[in-house]
Order: sequence, then structure tokens, then C-alpha cells
Amino acid sequence: MKRRKRLSEKEYIKGVLAGDRVVLSQAITLVESALPSDQTIAEEVMAAILPYTGKSIRVGITGVPGVGKSTFIERFGQLVIGEGLKLAVLAVDPSSQANKGSILGDKTRMETLSMDKRAYIRPSPSGVTLGGVSARTREAMLLCEAAGFDVVFIETVGVGQSEIAVKGMVDFFLLLMLAGAGDELQGIKKGIIEICDALIINKADGENTEAAKRAKREYANALHLFPEKGNSWVPQVMTCSGLTGDGLEAIWEMVQSYKEQMLLNGYFEENRAEQRVSWMHDHIGYLLESTFYQNESIKESIKQALPQIKSGNVSAIKKARELVQIFINQIQSGEK
Amino acid sequence: MKRRKRLSEKEYIKGVLAGDRVVLSQAITLVESALPSDQTIAEEVMAAILPYTGKSIRVGITGVPGVGKSTFIERFGQLVIGEGLKLAVLAVDPSSQANKGSILGDKTRMETLSMDKRAYIRPSPSGVTLGGVSARTREAMLLCEAAGFDVVFIETVGVGQSEIAVKGMVDFFLLLMLAGAGDELQGIKKGIIEICDALIINKADGENTEAAKRAKREYANALHLFPEKGNSWVPQVMTCSGLTGDGLEAIWEMVQSYKEQMLLNGYFEENRAEQRVSWMHDHIGYLLESTFYQNESIKESIKQALPQIKSGNVSAIKKARELVQIFINQIQSGEK
Repeated sequence: MKRRKRLSEKEYIKGVLAGDRVVLSQAITLVESALPSDQTIAEEVMAAILPYTGKSIRVGITGVPGVGKSTFIERFGQLVIGEGLKLAVLAVDPSSQANKGSILGDKTRMETLSMDKRAYIRPSPSGVTLGGVSARTREAMLLCEAAGFDVVFIETVGVGQSEIAVKGMVDFFLLLMLAGAGDELQGIKKGIIEICDALIINKADGENTEAAKRAKREYANALHLFPEKGNSWVPQVMTCSGLTGDGLEAIWEMVQSYKEQMLLNGYFEENRAEQRVSWMHDHIGYLLESTFYQNESIKESIKQALPQIKSGNVSAIKKARELVQIFINQIQSGEK
Repeated sequence: MKRRKRLSEKEYIKGVLAGDRVVLSQAITLVESALPSDQTIAEEVMAAILPYTGKSIRVGITGVPGVGKSTFIERFGQLVIGEGLKLAVLAVDPSSQANKGSILGDKTRMETLSMDKRAYIRPSPSGVTLGGVSARTREAMLLCEAAGFDVVFIETVGVGQSEIAVKGMVDFFLLLMLAGAGDELQGIKKGIIEICDALIINKADGENTEAAKRAKREYANALHLFPEKGNSWVPQVMTCSGLTGDGLEAIWEMVQSYKEQMLLNGYFEENRAEQRVSWMHDHIGYLLESTFYQNESIKESIKQALPQIKSGNVSAIKKARELVQIFINQIQSGEK
């Protein structure tokens, strides 16, 4: 259990809107809490700050481990704050099952950025929460917006479901890659192209510069084979070096130009509208499960069922249906 | 809507247990179906075949796109069937949001293996199903076991939540990697080590052989820094070539030796017992959501709420709670 100072609903709202980062951190911890009492306050806080959200540009950043994400964000973030903008960095991290720990648990990441007052870095929550990390990240992002941050980076790992979740909450999705042994094109699968707005070949420095340029040409050629997206944006391919900073300005210009174009053609708002709908559905799933598991009869029935399930004598999915039926009967009889 | 021949419950059970692969495919399609009528039959079929499951060795295989998974499975699979074993290959694929398509949609994958009668290859279901692909994959795996398959490969992409889901249904989890530009160690994060039982450096052939060997040494050294797992298995590091077949026999021997050791120390059954419990929880989530979304009042309320949610005038999470309350009130009043 984390040590946590509890504030009143009004204190959370006031503090966040005043840009107080201690309160912002406490508010994010509140929305991440699985306690029903915290959830209710969190929902009220979110509803109150909602009118003050939406003004940032939300950028998703992904790439496999080893691609240099931390160094990229450290440097790219400094460029952004150098433009006079306030930056929040949130990490979405598929927590490991074994110890409920964090893949990205490194303490030393983004040293310079994390010491800068214009940047706010929120590591991913440790532990798996009901309803998934992604639902809470969306709320953390909105809290950062209400606290006055102009740019939000959402960082995620790998190529999988967490990417799809993050894509569902950002305006721009950026995939970091490395120039490899010539087989880059194999790595581009349709699904990845569909979710990314830019492919960035990182570590384009020193000996690696030429290989990165070659990879860029190959990717760019491959991208032209894909049908145009509905928003008429062709994913851009660029090279950069998180280490030297080369290419980062061009990336930031691209993000801004994307936003301008999408605001003009209406896609920007359309995309955000769809994202709000997904947010609702995610939260419904979360609420259904938490209501179910907090039911006292269910707790007892699960306890009784476990030995049979573990031994494999009883089908897990038949028992699941039985438990859901018990839950429905409980509600009907008006019990808690 | 897929064209599908409907069988009776008994026909599914009899066909699967007889090892009829046409019926097996139909049974997997049945469990993947979101129709409530199909679900009920599927649960009965699963309960009936349950006593005939559990005898295979279940191997999860993952790696980022481009690592050579298809070639590896094609060749590794041939080795397995060459031992006189029947092999089923199931793909878990984070479907792309944009077109509900499949990242792994390649038609030409595993050509030789897919033509062999001793192997059964089931591509991932297209489209996102309620409750996630993973829940249904578990059932497909059990159906394959009941149909007499001795080995099941579950293939997944990337390093993220789908891996964690697959880890939750296999006995042995194998991570394919490539030798890179010397920065392999950065790529090993704690969470990945915790879920994998073996790290395989693929494409250890031709010019790449030396680099692969070097990477193997570096990984092996790094692994020794991690605390021993509860099952006293130290993740193995090996090199192989999916192209030439080098190293594949050693990998297969390792998988078998793992199984023997884990049977002896009791971890094998303990792990499967935990997995059955997760299966129950996954199905509970699935049933709660499908019951909710099939409710007529809910359908109507969501329709009415959508414009407000899209415009951002109403908080998505407050509306979610309101809808869940409507659902509970509906159940209490005894309506459908």
C-alpha cells in the first residue's frame, strides 16, 4: 500500500488547475487507486477538470527495448521545453506478472529532463490494475492538460496491445526503429503502419549514419505501397539521433504540421471524439469487474470454487458463468 | 459474418475427440463466436472435452516483427513432427484497430508445415472479440489437445501485453531475438526475463554467426545477475538459424528437459493450476461485458449518450458509471 496524502475533492481540483505538481501527482495517484471511495472522488475530479483539458498535443512514442527511447525522449523533450512549452511525460508499461514490477523501472532515466521545472515525468504505476493501465493513463493525461501542460508524451514499449491502447489516446503516434541488417522491410507489417504517423530511425550517428539513411529510403518506398489513410496523412520516415540531437527539430516540426493539417481537415477533433467513446467503454469494463469482485457472495463463491478450478476437475468457463449468474441473482434479490 | 456449418454439441465433441481436423476447426470457430447461443454450446463442449486435455507440452513463441518467427516455426515444427509428434500452431495476434485486420495476415507463412498432415495451423481470428483474443486461444489450445496433438505452439508478436496473456497459458515461453549492434543488453529488461524461459538468438548463420555467438555470451552473463526463479529454472540462452536449422535440436531438447524438471519439482502442475484460475477470471470479464452490451436498455442509453460523449461535454467516466447503474437497476427490476 502506498503512503498517500488524501485531499478533498476541491483541493485536488484547485491544485491541479493551479498547476501545482505535488497535487497533480496526488491526483494521478488518486485516479490509479482501485479503492471504490477513491474512484468516486476521482470521477468527480475528472468531471470538474474536463472543461480545462484538450489543449495539448498528445504524442505517443513507442519502439522495442533497446531502440533508445529514453535517450530520445530526454533530448526531444529538451527541445520541446526549449520552445517555451511545458511538457509532461507519461509511461505506459506492460507490468511484469511475476513480481508486479515494471519493465521500465530504471531509476536513472531522463536525468536532465526530470530535473527541469518545465517538464513533469510520471513513471508508470507499478502493479496491474483492474481494467488495465491504459484507462488510468488517459486520466493522467487529462490531469496534466488541466495543470497547464502544452505537450504530453505517452511512452510505451514494444509492438503489441499496449500500443493499440496508446494509439487510442494520442493525436500523433511515433514509432522508433533501428537500422538493422537489411531486413527492415520484413519488420513493417500492415498493422504497425496503420497505427503510426511517423517512423523514426534512431541512432543515426557515427558509423550507423549511412545504414540509417538507407533504411529510411527503404521504409519510405515501402510506405508508398500502402493505401492512403482516411485523414490523408502519409506516415513520414525520418532519421535522428537521440544522442547528438540530429533530426529532432525536423520531427518536432512534423508533429506541429500534422496538427495544423488535421485541425484543418477536421480529423483532429473527429479522432478525439472517437477516443472519448473508447474511454467510456474502457471504464464500463472496469466498473463491471470491480462491482463484481467487491460483491461479498462472489468473494465467498470464488474462494469455494478455487480448489476445483485448480485441480482441473471443473471447467473454468462453466464456473465463470455460474459465478456471473450468482452475481445477477444477488443484484435481483437486492443484496449488496 | 462468417459462413459456418453448425454441428450439434455431440458432433463437436465426438469429432474433436476423434481427431477430425475439420470438426476441430469448426469447434475453434464456435468458441471464437460472440453469439450467446454459440457460447453456451461452446462451454458445454469445453466441459466435455476437459478430461482429455492437458497432455501436450505448450510452448509460447514470441519476438518482434522481423526476428524470423515464421521461418523458425516452420523449421522447428518440422523437427517436432519428425519426432513422430503431432503439432498444432496457434497465432495470437494483436489485431490492428484500423481495419480489424491481422498483423500476421500473410498467406504464405509456413508453407511446408501447413501442408503436412501431422501439423495443424490455426491463424489468429480476425477482428477484435470481446474479452480479448487470449481467452479464446486458451480454448483453442485445449481443443487441439483433446484432438490428440502432442505439442502446441502459441505464437505472438512483440513484447507487450499479448506476451503476458500467452505466458499465462503455456508451459514454456521462448523469446526470439536478433544479434544487434552491441546494445543487446539494453534490450533485456527485467520484465522480459521474468516471463521467458529461453532467449534464442535467431539468424545465427553466414556472416551473422559470430555476432550471434557474442550476443549469446552477453545475454548469458546478464541473466546470471537476475535472482533465480521460484521454479529454480535459469532461462537458457541459445543461438539458432531458422533458415539452416542449426541449433533447433538443442532447443527442442531443452524444452523436453524443462518439462521433466518441472514435473519433478511440482512446478509444472502448480503453474497450470494458476493458469486455470486466470482462465476463469478472463471468462468472467468476458461474460460481464457481453451481458451488459446485449441489454436492450443499455443499447438505447449508449446510443443517446454518444453525441454528448463525442463532443466532450459529458465526462466519459461519469457516463460509464451511470450506464452501469442503469444496468444494475434493470437486473433488479427483473427485465432482460
